[in-house]
Order: sequence, then structure tokens, then C-alpha cells
Amino acid sequence: MIIVLKNSLDKTYNNKQLIYKNRGMDLENMINRSNQYYLDTDKAVIYKKPTPIGVVKVAFKDNHKIIDRGYFKEQSTLDYNGLYKGKYLDFEAKVTKNKTSFPLNNIHAHQIEHMKKVIKHGGISFLIIMINEIIYLLKGEDFLEYLNTHGRKSVAYEYIKEKGYELKIKLNPELDYLKIVDKIYF
Amino acid sequence: MIIVLKNSLDKTYNNKQLIYKNRGMDLENMINRSNQYYLDTDKAVIYKKPTPIGVVKVAFKDNHKIIDRGYFKEQSTLDYNGLYKGKYLDFEAKVTKNKTSFPLNNIHAHQIEHMKKVIKHGGISFLIIMINEIIYLLKGEDFLEYLNTHGRKSVAYEYIKEKGYELKIKLNPELDYLKIVDKIYF
Repeated sequence: MIIVLKNSLDKTYNNKQLIYKNRGMDLENMINRSNQYYLDTDKAVIYKKPTPIGVVKVAFKDNHKIIDRGYFKEQSTLDYNGLYKGKYLDFEAKVTKNKTSFPLNNIHAHQIEHMKKVIKHGGISFLIIMINEIIYLLKGEDFLEYLNTHGRKSVAYEYIKEKGYELKIKLNPELDYLKIVDKIYF
Repeated sequence: MIIVLKNSLDKTYNNKQLIYKNRGMDLENMINRSNQYYLDTDKAVIYKKPTPIGVVKVAFKDNHKIIDRGYFKEQSTLDYNGLYKGKYLDFEAKVTKNKTSFPLNNIHAHQIEHMKKVIKHGGISFLIIMINEIIYLLKGEDFLEYLNTHGRKSVAYEYIKEKGYELKIKLNPELDYLKIVDKIYF
């Protein structure tokens, strides 16, 4: 687990020399802490799925099995899933430094298929996208609708701005995305 | 991913010199294949969660990040989760060689707390237990009820037999646990 001090987030936001890889980590940590808050306040049960790995070689150290060689695999599903008000919910969070569109090269085809399935089976599925310093929640339905009509290369920023719901950073939880979920799904 | 040939399962079942560790793997593989069947037939969207790991050291090989040293961590939730008929569902599968009871030393306290939360928030949560060569589905509610009255050491086989639902091995899917879920939850 990577622990980020709360203040480091503000620092990152005030720092002009942004490293976007860290932005992704910040967004992820914000969501993780928000999920922990939802768990602690008994509002929802939502977790990040562990990154799947392939173990090539195991070893034993002090009687514990350890991984001596492994590699990272792709997630077949979205990164986060869980339960809110009796409903299945899942989503993926992404950051882009692109200003005019959200490129889809880091969302895999099987993840898009997964989204379709979740929606079809009555679950809630969406994306959290950070673009142009703003965080949006984009409904899976709107995302898929766009892909249908525009292809699978990218989603125009204008579309995200029009259809997405802005998520403001605040305290406890830092990213209260369930407030938007309440508004659009319940 | 570990691939087990279908026939090896029958062999294991006919082999008197059972290795119970493999039994656990067989049960897991049966469930994974059943989940794949549910996915292929568009009946449900259920996956095994990857085992969480801690990465101690990464290395680069052919421009790919690989794990040079890592360790296995405990799952905070249950191993399987997903979506069925609009409902959130999660479960854990365990094999015991104990004949009179199912010992709880391999179900962690936080997993029990997780089950309680899932049920409270309107999800479906259960255990799949292989004991005395028989596979049972035990509802989370019945499991928790037993722990409340008998403590957290083990669940008597008699109780599992009385309250559990037997899952017979068949073809496509090998372990049709959703049939029981239909019967008891819908």
C-alpha cells in the first residue's frame, strides 16, 4: 500500500511542475480514502481490486511463501467495485494530461465489454476522469453511447463537460462520488 | 493462471490418496470455470478477486515492469464477487479435511465483518464449503447466526448439513451455485 500524506495532495495541486503519473496516484489515493470513509461511516462497501499478477517463481523466506519473480497483468474488469444501497457498482478512475480529449488507449476492450455487461445486468458502472484539472464522473451509458457514435479512439473533452458530473475535492470524503451516484442513479 | 485439465478433476475424485491442497485448487477451478460459463452465457458477471500482493522490489525487463520481490497479503473481502440479476453477490470457497466441523482459522475476522456489511447493505453473501467430500452453499446469515451462538472457532458439520444446500458437480456449469442462489435469495 502506498500512503500519501494528506498535505502532499495540496502541494501537488499547487505545484506547476506536475508529474501526471503522480496525479494518477493522487486520484487513486483520494478514491481509496473516500472508500475507506464510506466503509467507516457504513455508507457503502467499495474496494479497489488488487492488480492481478502472474507469479513466475516463488521462494520461501522464514517459512513464508514469497514472490521471487512475477509480472503485472491486465484487469478484466474495472478497478473498483462494491455495493451501495443494495446495488452492484463498479468504476474505473483515469487521469489524462490531454486537454481536448480523453484517449482510450488505457481502457481495454474487455473493460468496455465488462461495462456493457454490468449495465445490462442492472449494475451501476461509470468512469471517473481527471482532465484539465477537473474531475468528472461520466456514466457508463453516456460513455458507451459516445463510443457507438464516435468510435473507440477517444472521448472529446466537450462531451465529458456536457455529460459528466463534476466532482469537487472536499473533506471527508475527499471525493464524494456517491452524492452524484445518488443524484443520477437513485 | 493455473489451468487444470477437466479430466484431472475426475482423477482426483477417484484417487484415494487425496492431497487436500489440490482439492482446494480443484474447487477454485470449478468455480472459476462456472463463472466463465455464467459470463459466456450472459447469466451473471462474477469474478475471483486477484490475490493482493505487496511489491517489495520492481525491476525492468524488455521495457516491462516486473516484480523482483513481493509477498502475498490477506484479502479484506471475500474472494469472489460480482453481479447477478441486479444484485451484488459475494462469497468465499473453502475446503476442509476435517470431518466433524469446518474450522474458522482460514476465514479472517475482517472477512466476517465484511460479510456482515454486505448483508446489511442488501447484498448476497455466502460460503461454499467442501467437507466430507460434499460441497455445500451456506448462507452468510446462517453462518453468522452460528458464530453468534457458538463462537468463532468452527462450524459443526451437523449444522452445515442441516442449513447448507448441497451443490452437485455436473456439466456446464460444473458447480451451478446460482441455481441455489435463485432458490434462496430470489
